[in-house]
Amino acid sequence: MFVNTLEPRFLETDALGHINNTVLPMWFEASRDPLFRLFSPDMDVKNWKLILASFNINFHAETHYGTSVEIKTYINRIGNSSFDVYQECWQNGIKTVSGISTMVHFCHSEKKSIALTVAQIELMKEHLFEQ
Amino acid sequence: MFVNTLEPRFLETDALGHINNTVLPMWFEASRDPLFRLFSPDMDVKNWKLILASFNINFHAETHYGTSVEIKTYINRIGNSSFDVYQECWQNGIKTVSGISTMVHFCHSEKKSIALTVAQIELMKEHLFEQ
Amino acid sequence: MFVNTLEPRFLETDALGHINNTVLPMWFEASRDPLFRLFSPDMDVKNWKLILASFNINFHAETHYGTSVEIKTYINRIGNSSFDVYQECWQNGIKTVSGISTMVHFCHSEKKSIALTVAQIELMKEHLFEQ
Amino acid sequence: MFVNTLEPRFLETDALGHINNTVLPMWFEASRDPLFRLFSPDMDVKNWKLILASFNINFHAETHYGTSVEIKTYINRIGNSSFDVYQECWQNGIKTVSGISTMVHFCHSEKKSIALTVAQIELMKEHLFEQ
Repeated sequence: MFVNTLEPRFLETDALGHINNTVLPMWFEASRDPLFRLFSPDMDVKNWKLILASFNINFHAETHYGTSVEIKTYINRIGNSSFDVYQECWQNGIKTVSGISTMVHFCHSEKKSIALTVAQIELMKEHLFEQ
Repeated sequence: MFVNTLEPRFLETDALGHINNTVLPMWFEASRDPLFRLFSPDMDVKNWKLILASFNINFHAETHYGTSVEIKTYINRIGNSSFDVYQECWQNGIKTVSGISTMVHFCHSEKKSIALTVAQIELMKEHLFEQ
Repeated sequence: MFVNTLEPRFLETDALGHINNTVLPMWFEASRDPLFRLFSPDMDVKNWKLILASFNINFHAETHYGTSVEIKTYINRIGNSSFDVYQECWQNGIKTVSGISTMVHFCHSEKKSIALTVAQIELMKEHLFEQ
Repeated sequence: MFVNTLEPRFLETDALGHINNTVLPMWFEASRDPLFRLFSPDMDVKNWKLILASFNINFHAETHYGTSVEIKTYINRIGNSSFDVYQECWQNGIKTVSGISTMVHFCHSEKKSIALTVAQIELMKEHLFEQ
């Protein structure tokens, strides 16, 4: 598990008074940085190795401005060239949002997927979600 | 079907050179405005009737800056107090992204769901997705 | 003058119930697209010719969700290699925000400014702000 | 001086490969949280005391994804009911962006400015910018 602590931004609220739903994919992407670093250790955007195939987000409770949130990031499926990332947003002891993103190991110049290496799989296995 | 034509914004690109994935939930929310208007005709945010329970987004192709996109919005499930909205993003004749959002008819003061009215259901039926 | 009509997005509101101040630089950037097109007719982001040196924004009145806004874009200074863009946001007949951005004609590969051409200056002169 | 350390988000880059200019007002607003807390200690958005009158931002160098930034926040003018906040963004020992925001002590229900109290002024004086 990777944990990322974020301060909700006032601008991330909406007129209903709490964090707008479109903010969560941004917090979740920001919290996948350790995975980006695993695939592109130098964080060079010209040598990027991952693309996002899909994501789904489930809202369980309102998330508010004024208190930090913890984003917990786990691997919960490792395929041949793709894997699923499971993430939760916690605030004040409440799981407010959860979601799954499917990422693909990808070669941008050839525009095709690449098999995950044994080393990548071993590193990801350290962060598996276990219920 | 509702159609919303949008110009991708330069700031919505990322370092990979195309539209960042976190932008799509924003375009899709913006394109659900006609549904917001159906439930809150005066668009008064203090009298809001809908909440988002979940959404999922599937990326089929890159979306680019420099050419307009068309967001097509359909109803594809009508439940007792909730309904699903199916949306597609099209650019240059290509369906680049699709997604489903589950919305709940909701009373913010009592914090509970409300049954959809016959009138609301009739209006939504005009925009059903038919494959 | 260039005019761009935008629908404020629900997500662009904040907990105070109106459009958050950080949204205006985004609307203004989006409304400078015709200037981007003037300098990079093919809108190829790999061959970009402009950078932003500074901007200032003045808030005159609240901007609201639920009604479209008009962004008016003018040139109000043409220098040797730089120029100023003056922009106004209007909603319901009220000028709610105004701002000035200083743009520089720039070579990204050599990382230095380039003199504006006579043709560029002539095109910009058609959009001068005259009080 | 208040210091806020932020991790630039991948989604905050644009097609030019570095952080988009419209992101800076967001980082600066997020870094004014300690001032919001000074005026609204309970961070209750229904009892908000500040509005933004204007801001200007100057870009000195590119800001990049992959390395944290430090936002330094100072008070550099204290008026009767308003004050100026001076902020700098630093990355890898380089001041990449600076800006000034003018904030007004404001009563949202009566829609008018309120004189700063002696206590508020004393607290702000602890964070004055001195060149």
